[in-house]
Amino acid sequence: MAKEPKKLDELFHDTLKDIYFAEKKILATLPKMAKAAQSEELRAAFEKHEAETQDQIGRLEEVFAAIDKKPQGKTCAAIVGITEEGTEIMQEYKGSPALDAGLLAAAQAVEHYEISRYGTLIAWAEELGLEDAVALLQDTLEEEKATDETLSDIAKTAINREAEAA
Amino acid sequence: MAKEPKKLDELFHDTLKDIYFAEKKILATLPKMAKAAQSEELRAAFEKHEAETQDQIGRLEEVFAAIDKKPQGKTCAAIVGITEEGTEIMQEYKGSPALDAGLLAAAQAVEHYEISRYGTLIAWAEELGLEDAVALLQDTLEEEKATDETLSDIAKTAINREAEAA
Repeated sequence: MAKEPKKLDELFHDTLKDIYFAEKKILATLPKMAKAAQSEELRAAFEKHEAETQDQIGRLEEVFAAIDKKPQGKTCAAIVGITEEGTEIMQEYKGSPALDAGLLAAAQAVEHYEISRYGTLIAWAEELGLEDAVALLQDTLEEEKATDETLSDIAKTAINREAEAA
Repeated sequence: MAKEPKKLDELFHDTLKDIYFAEKKILATLPKMAKAAQSEELRAAFEKHEAETQDQIGRLEEVFAAIDKKPQGKTCAAIVGITEEGTEIMQEYKGSPALDAGLLAAAQAVEHYEISRYGTLIAWAEELGLEDAVALLQDTLEEEKATDETLSDIAKTAINREAEAA
């Protein structure tokens, strides 16, 4: 074989670059979503998550340090696609009663992508014996799950509002 | 306003088209992932999910019928991006001990996207009083969650195998 086979430590590093890119993309997208949101509650949730995302990027930089690597992003096609759907919603539903419901759904798709990625990274970090990384990634995973639950709670009231407006 | 404002029923229909496209994309991707998988257990899981995906497409067609619409897909940028990452893994990790761990992670990202979308669609269908649709979408959501759990279980053994090979 011409190339040296890639092992789990390399896959962990590659996936760390992927989520680092994704978090930065999310950080750039959240203010746009907050601005577009019609409900004050949803806007506040997006703003809170923007601050959390900043912390999560800091934690990822600590994980890079834990494996003696420089923080570096790698284009993550998934998050590009997922955030593109959020942009479509903002454009197609501007001024419409269903806008907030659509924004919420887009944000929950982002959260689920992150929940999946952090769950995977934690399992690999455990396997690789990277205890500090496990703790850092676990903190972020808990935040993402809490954000997803908050969005589900808001959805119940926001959706009702849309339906009333309909 | 020039355009009529879009309401929840239209958002539901748009998102149904999005997941219909996504399921078909997943159906086309699963055989490639099954072929690439090194472990027999992972291959079998992908093949089983391929059959389930076919059923899920059938259920979506019933949901379209329940709202008097023809089944129709709409390009879903998110699933295009998510499956593109799976393709990258197949190319970059071909012949490497970490291939199966990467394939598993890619498949779990797909499952989480679907779990998020079906959860959203169920909430909207409830709000819109579409009881038949709720039941159909709920069946699929349960299947997606079970698949995600199966993949997590396989990950534990597959990851160990990778680590041993490393």
